[in-house]
Amino acid sequence: MKRIFLSILILSVVCSGTHGQRRILNIPDLPGYVTLKCDLHLHTVFSDGSVWPLNRLAEAYINGLDVIAITDHIEYTPKKEYIPVDLNAAWKISEASAKEGNLILVHGAEITRDMPPGHLNALFITDADELKKDSVYDAVAAAVAQGAFIQWNHPGWKSQEPDGIPKLYPIHKKLLEKGWINGIEFFNSDEYYPVILDWCRKYNLAVMGNSDEHNIISESYREPEYSSRPMTLVFAKERTSESLKEALFAQRTLVWFKDMIGGKPEYAKPFFYASISIGKVFYESSRYRYFEITNKSDVPFYLVNGPAGAPGYITLAARSVTRIVLSKAFTGQLSYDVRNIMTGSEEVLKVELKY
Amino acid sequence: MKRIFLSILILSVVCSGTHGQRRILNIPDLPGYVTLKCDLHLHTVFSDGSVWPLNRLAEAYINGLDVIAITDHIEYTPKKEYIPVDLNAAWKISEASAKEGNLILVHGAEITRDMPPGHLNALFITDADELKKDSVYDAVAAAVAQGAFIQWNHPGWKSQEPDGIPKLYPIHKKLLEKGWINGIEFFNSDEYYPVILDWCRKYNLAVMGNSDEHNIISESYREPEYSSRPMTLVFAKERTSESLKEALFAQRTLVWFKDMIGGKPEYAKPFFYASISIGKVFYESSRYRYFEITNKSDVPFYLVNGPAGAPGYITLAARSVTRIVLSKAFTGQLSYDVRNIMTGSEEVLKVELKY
Amino acid sequence: MKRIFLSILILSVVCSGTHGQRRILNIPDLPGYVTLKCDLHLHTVFSDGSVWPLNRLAEAYINGLDVIAITDHIEYTPKKEYIPVDLNAAWKISEASAKEGNLILVHGAEITRDMPPGHLNALFITDADELKKDSVYDAVAAAVAQGAFIQWNHPGWKSQEPDGIPKLYPIHKKLLEKGWINGIEFFNSDEYYPVILDWCRKYNLAVMGNSDEHNIISESYREPEYSSRPMTLVFAKERTSESLKEALFAQRTLVWFKDMIGGKPEYAKPFFYASISIGKVFYESSRYRYFEITNKSDVPFYLVNGPAGAPGYITLAARSVTRIVLSKAFTGQLSYDVRNIMTGSEEVLKVELKY
Amino acid sequence: MKRIFLSILILSVVCSGTHGQRRILNIPDLPGYVTLKCDLHLHTVFSDGSVWPLNRLAEAYINGLDVIAITDHIEYTPKKEYIPVDLNAAWKISEASAKEGNLILVHGAEITRDMPPGHLNALFITDADELKKDSVYDAVAAAVAQGAFIQWNHPGWKSQEPDGIPKLYPIHKKLLEKGWINGIEFFNSDEYYPVILDWCRKYNLAVMGNSDEHNIISESYREPEYSSRPMTLVFAKERTSESLKEALFAQRTLVWFKDMIGGKPEYAKPFFYASISIGKVFYESSRYRYFEITNKSDVPFYLVNGPAGAPGYITLAARSVTRIVLSKAFTGQLSYDVRNIMTGSEEVLKVELKY
Repeated sequence: MKRIFLSILILSVVCSGTHGQRRILNIPDLPGYVTLKCDLHLHTVFSDGSVWPLNRLAEAYINGLDVIAITDHIEYTPKKEYIPVDLNAAWKISEASAKEGNLILVHGAEITRDMPPGHLNALFITDADELKKDSVYDAVAAAVAQGAFIQWNHPGWKSQEPDGIPKLYPIHKKLLEKGWINGIEFFNSDEYYPVILDWCRKYNLAVMGNSDEHNIISESYREPEYSSRPMTLVFAKERTSESLKEALFAQRTLVWFKDMIGGKPEYAKPFFYASISIGKVFYESSRYRYFEITNKSDVPFYLVNGPAGAPGYITLAARSVTRIVLSKAFTGQLSYDVRNIMTGSEEVLKVELKY
Repeated sequence: MKRIFLSILILSVVCSGTHGQRRILNIPDLPGYVTLKCDLHLHTVFSDGSVWPLNRLAEAYINGLDVIAITDHIEYTPKKEYIPVDLNAAWKISEASAKEGNLILVHGAEITRDMPPGHLNALFITDADELKKDSVYDAVAAAVAQGAFIQWNHPGWKSQEPDGIPKLYPIHKKLLEKGWINGIEFFNSDEYYPVILDWCRKYNLAVMGNSDEHNIISESYREPEYSSRPMTLVFAKERTSESLKEALFAQRTLVWFKDMIGGKPEYAKPFFYASISIGKVFYESSRYRYFEITNKSDVPFYLVNGPAGAPGYITLAARSVTRIVLSKAFTGQLSYDVRNIMTGSEEVLKVELKY
Repeated sequence: MKRIFLSILILSVVCSGTHGQRRILNIPDLPGYVTLKCDLHLHTVFSDGSVWPLNRLAEAYINGLDVIAITDHIEYTPKKEYIPVDLNAAWKISEASAKEGNLILVHGAEITRDMPPGHLNALFITDADELKKDSVYDAVAAAVAQGAFIQWNHPGWKSQEPDGIPKLYPIHKKLLEKGWINGIEFFNSDEYYPVILDWCRKYNLAVMGNSDEHNIISESYREPEYSSRPMTLVFAKERTSESLKEALFAQRTLVWFKDMIGGKPEYAKPFFYASISIGKVFYESSRYRYFEITNKSDVPFYLVNGPAGAPGYITLAARSVTRIVLSKAFTGQLSYDVRNIMTGSEEVLKVELKY
Repeated sequence: MKRIFLSILILSVVCSGTHGQRRILNIPDLPGYVTLKCDLHLHTVFSDGSVWPLNRLAEAYINGLDVIAITDHIEYTPKKEYIPVDLNAAWKISEASAKEGNLILVHGAEITRDMPPGHLNALFITDADELKKDSVYDAVAAAVAQGAFIQWNHPGWKSQEPDGIPKLYPIHKKLLEKGWINGIEFFNSDEYYPVILDWCRKYNLAVMGNSDEHNIISESYREPEYSSRPMTLVFAKERTSESLKEALFAQRTLVWFKDMIGGKPEYAKPFFYASISIGKVFYESSRYRYFEITNKSDVPFYLVNGPAGAPGYITLAARSVTRIVLSKAFTGQLSYDVRNIMTGSEEVLKVELKY
């Protein structure tokens, strides 16, 4: 009988197999900031998920994340016939193990209502019980009173918005006015909502991306089809819960899933340049210059709409070196659109390659 | 939010992705019998496992199994602070879904004691509560009174037998005499105990192999490293719970894990011949005859100790055709030992290839 | 030094590793016919390919094919500075090994001209040297005089048809009138040309699909991204070169690549039904019937446009069992379009599921 | 028709797919040196290999190597019936493409004799034709006259040494005395010869490791079973052919294959420390200190024989972070043997972890 100790509290080396070790995610830091890889929306058997809370820690550890929030539904607890409702249970079960696993655990809960306003994650709370209120407004107020960061979840979820398009209802506007929505999910599991990028810029909100996993991360995001789960990249001053919170309120985030990055250009642009390095010309023929671009990150970049006389498109595959062959007749700037870095619902990042 | 309906009760096609469909295990039937692929030792959050019972059904469905038993510990329920002890809960939660998923669910429980006698699975019970007894003897008696098949689990588990070698203690002999042990695990997760094959022949017991999974099957047995979890192959008259039980008591089993088959020669031999087919000579040169052996099963066969003048060893890879080149001077019998079919602690299956 | 014997002439078992054995392709036979898996368009170092001819045999053996044709360009031999032109070299080098490997080797050559008429494979020739003619018409005539089957290759290749759309030029019509085009490629490497399905029906031609590999099959079609290379499925009376030729002239073919099947409905329909089996109802609830469909083949089937009251779409994944849950209120016929079986440029196969 | 341009001379980006881009090998530089990843033993159709020379460049490019040598056999040219012997052909065909692909191509040839002395690679030659001599001694002399580095290949190859054990014959001693053997292969394809590590230390020779590939690199070293081909890591002052040669003669090498590193301790030790970084204590409980070790390299390290009171073994998986939990009662040095870094036939590297 091989009993799996899900508590990472093992008094020696955690695991000796590759699968048990912490993956290194190749995601660059930005100047002045450490990049925290976060999944701030997860469920367990304490609401409608199917795993024990410690599994969420083990998954995060193996996946190379820095931060998770377990955010069971407050108002939807279908297993209560067998598991008595305890909205703080996941936190209590996981808190010590998170410390031993060098993971930042965020105390959270999901305020779960019909649309509007839909589902809202309260993050950095101290007691989920106090969020049990008849009025969603009171529930959010209680969370805010605990210092919570409020994240509007899956605003275009088809069970609540059949056309898949997020809509700002009066209650959302009211919450926004009070500062009671601080971020919105652009990615939720395998969905994304382009308009959120515009709203986050307009209303000064953090762009968020999370798995909202109810079942098994490794089954929902199988390798090699998926390189990782959806996640929020938070640019924090330090790798601490306090810095994380500061950075979220300051909206210093990007989101990443599959080969797409979303977020504000002020973070997307340095993220791109921190991911790549452009080598010197290593060879010249009579007509061409040859140089290489190295992309050390786990994110590929698809450069399109190149200038006349230069390559029309360039794919900088993840963890790879790409050779560029440039006509000597070309003397302009190597400007491209990065097709897979969205900075608005109809806008992608523009970059320039200096060789 | 992509809520996973773990109940397979979905009113349309279950799943549209490959991963959600039922794998076909290429395991042959034996003449007169249908081969049921079974994992009769599984845990959930109702004892020390980490998943909800319906996950065990979903895993079995995707893995192509026919039968599972959920066998939570009776005497070890470390999550009881959050989940009240209910020894029949997994059965109640899963019974209806199993029918809808065309899976045979066996009602079970694990009588969990120090060695001796160690851990015993009671299978085909009707009420696990009745097995809560101070005396292990009384617990087994209560299971037998319900018609249970008693399986001795992981007899060489190092937490209970530090040298890893199963031992027959007086209580085991007493239970055997009364007919209260009906099978023993040869495979338990990634361990196996060769002597069990001898004991099963000597005492007329079924050879058993199970995962004893506490956590996530797909993580414990990752492809392509693992082709499947450990399992018991039961040769039943029909694909029903009753036929399964009859076959288990009649000891018509083999066990399979990775590339190893274990069990009695009366089942191992027809299993080998049902897995392969030997083609006619397709080409003759002046000195050689060429023919092919097709192994349609998911089990490779490693044939060794070939006769003089013939290939010394032949590997019949799973789902593959192997070409044989035989000297025309060879006129004997193509007799081999199948190195990976164990029929005793120091005995492997002997076969002959008729071409 | 591990010298690789590419000649499969090894005097014992070919290979003991899985990778060296012959894969079983799960492709059904049709009633009265054996299905030959063929790649009838391959290159070697004797024209502009990069490998030795025996590599083509080894690749075919491992891939589970029955038939290959090596069809080096007659008029394009860019390696002639180092390798003297010998249009029959690949045949001479490979013929004996093919017999020893139970592979049918077709003697071929590619008549390589500008469009029109583009490139034409002459298959089942006896001497490629005789096909060296100034006039393409004379070259085809010489091939036909040898009994060749003429295959028009990649009719929409963008190097010759910049818009990617095949066009019938006068010379094609002339060749068709004389019966000097017998098949056309629908698949060529990773391209396909829908209109070919219409032309093959209109002009009574065989639908062909081939890799046209110049480099390394396992690199061009990497698993798991690709399940196999493009191939022609030929429904022959026997597994012989003569039967293959008869079946090709009789146009008894389908083509397969990735998850797409193309060809005439008279073969596509029995192919579908030979691939699947529909089980009996295994469970009935008050409102639903449950049954399973088994697809033993390596081809998935995407059923769409289901009747009202039944599942709208059903995916029958390769080598999988799919559960169907059908309302008892539904009493009609389970008719579907198979989205990935093309029978015309704008037509897919229609099937009915009898449960 | 998708013609593969094996010449990497493509006038734009080489390839847009991941497979076509240059992999980044995570192998650290050593202080003062750049680590060149080299395979200095490769064959083509110009001797007994099965591919065109440009394929060797394309493979090296994709694999992330810096250097290759094509070393066709001088005295074994079994394809000469079809391909006239030209010992410099591979060099002539590949030289320009290597420059365009930022690969260092070493001009080489394999002096191919019975044992003794067996096979010797002459590297950095200028004309292989001059090495065609009746006497092996003369052949080596001719290579040395061209400034060649002489590498003794696969000294324990079973076709020449049936017991697999390398032996120093008089001719080897004579060559060594004259300085006409400069390196010996420890790794050759999937073989290795432990005694070579001792000989290289005793005779001041470079430890070499190469694939000796005759067929297809991606087929011989399939992922994920193999992380890369065998290779020689050369610690050069610059990434140039001249620096490479200087470093080889100065014996600044390690060899790497699968999870094994071999070589002299003066390079193995800094290689280990350059691969890992040890983090600060991130958590302390009443009894334990917790810290992490990051291994950014593609080489795992298996630390064994730990001191009493500390973890007995630690596996630092490739590209992973490993958590260490250390008793506060432990106050000694964390000294380990690195089981998979061989520095002698019976010696492994010893390291100390400073936390």
